Amino acid sequence: MKFRIVDLTHELSSDMPVFPGDSAPEIEALSAHDKDGCQELELRLTTHTGTHIDCPRHLLQGMMSLSSFDVGFFYGKAITIDCSAVKDEIPLGVLQPYHHKLNRIDFILFYTGHDKWWGRKEYFVKFPVLTQEAAGYLTRFRIRGVGFDAVSADRIDSTDLPVHNIILKKNILIIENLTALKNVLDMDFYFSCFPLKIRDGDGSPVRAVAYLKEE
Amino acid sequence: MKFRIVDLTHELSSDMPVFPGDSAPEIEALSAHDKDGCQELELRLTTHTGTHIDCPRHLLQGMMSLSSFDVGFFYGKAITIDCSAVKDEIPLGVLQPYHHKLNRIDFILFYTGHDKWWGRKEYFVKFPVLTQEAAGYLTRFRIRGVGFDAVSADRIDSTDLPVHNIILKKNILIIENLTALKNVLDMDFYFSCFPLKIRDGDGSPVRAVAYLKEE
Repeated sequence: MKFRIVDLTHELSSDMPVFPGDSAPEIEALSAHDKDGCQELELRLTTHTGTHIDCPRHLLQGMMSLSSFDVGFFYGKAITIDCSAVKDEIPLGVLQPYHHKLNRIDFILFYTGHDKWWGRKEYFVKFPVLTQEAAGYLTRFRIRGVGFDAVSADRIDSTDLPVHNIILKKNILIIENLTALKNVLDMDFYFSCFPLKIRDGDGSPVRAVAYLKEE
Repeated sequence: MKFRIVDLTHELSSDMPVFPGDSAPEIEALSAHDKDGCQELELRLTTHTGTHIDCPRHLLQGMMSLSSFDVGFFYGKAITIDCSAVKDEIPLGVLQPYHHKLNRIDFILFYTGHDKWWGRKEYFVKFPVLTQEAAGYLTRFRIRGVGFDAVSADRIDSTDLPVHNIILKKNILIIENLTALKNVLDMDFYFSCFPLKIRDGDGSPVRAVAYLKEE
């Protein structure tokens, strides 16, 4: 089927924002046209840089890594829930109207609009997170991934990461640092977040995209 | 549409094969469960490690980089041409029977079977390459990418990279180190090679996949 592809991914560069305490990626020229007749870059980045997925293995020893998932797991039906009016916590009540849809989709993405702060210090504060009750509710469905347009599924200063743990324990992926989710509101679409095929990886930077039916 | 996804990608690991002279990727634990309560890896790899795409910028200064392409460019209709009986060069005659199909597809992949040598020294020798005439013929169609299940579109000891130049000059991508193309022979399918969103990148490791219609 002919799809229109919509990019939901932040750009990778050496001056991009990273989780507080992490190192920014280093992107350096191994070869350059003037000197070598070609350009080749070396990338030094973590499995959680930029728009990326978390596997259960990230927090839970012995649980599923990238190598445990069939590649088809990273592609499926999706919806985006509008949380742009939410200030602090995304409560259960926001999810319940989607009960029937949650039985039919693979990925649920939360549009908060917080990606407008990407590149500024505000990006790391006051982004909405799911309540533990809402996160637990999601895991009752056969979904594969939960995505956010903010830096984390938990509060920036969380040490026990309750939302991460509730979701990852059920072998559901978390996708963080998504952007442009406003472009896929109020529609059914397909979504993919194919990771690099890193042996036993706990996560991976991805090119997250939506597949929209051509009109 | 419900698709079955087929993986056409080699695994990334610190002991994987790389182009002669290049460094193997370094994949190291930044955090580990025993010590830190979570796992996070650091990746150090080039834009041409493993299954990857070459942009025109790789060889041609000032020409299109990853940032120049709309994300939809990396997804489209594909066919795989069986070259498993070819020993040395893929001549024009192999392509001509596909004349009509070449007007309707975006990606053309060449199955040579040479990926069976991945991980052995034989991988770097005697893989079939397109003749310059065949490469030039391909550029007469509106294709977006040409893919190979070998380490390069040119001979391993080539210094002037004629096939690369013919293809990249027309703003067509090259995909190298594909695998498992036997699984997508004799069918029409969709293909994607979404790159990491590296600013001005000359190429990127990718998770190359085929999308097959469910029967």
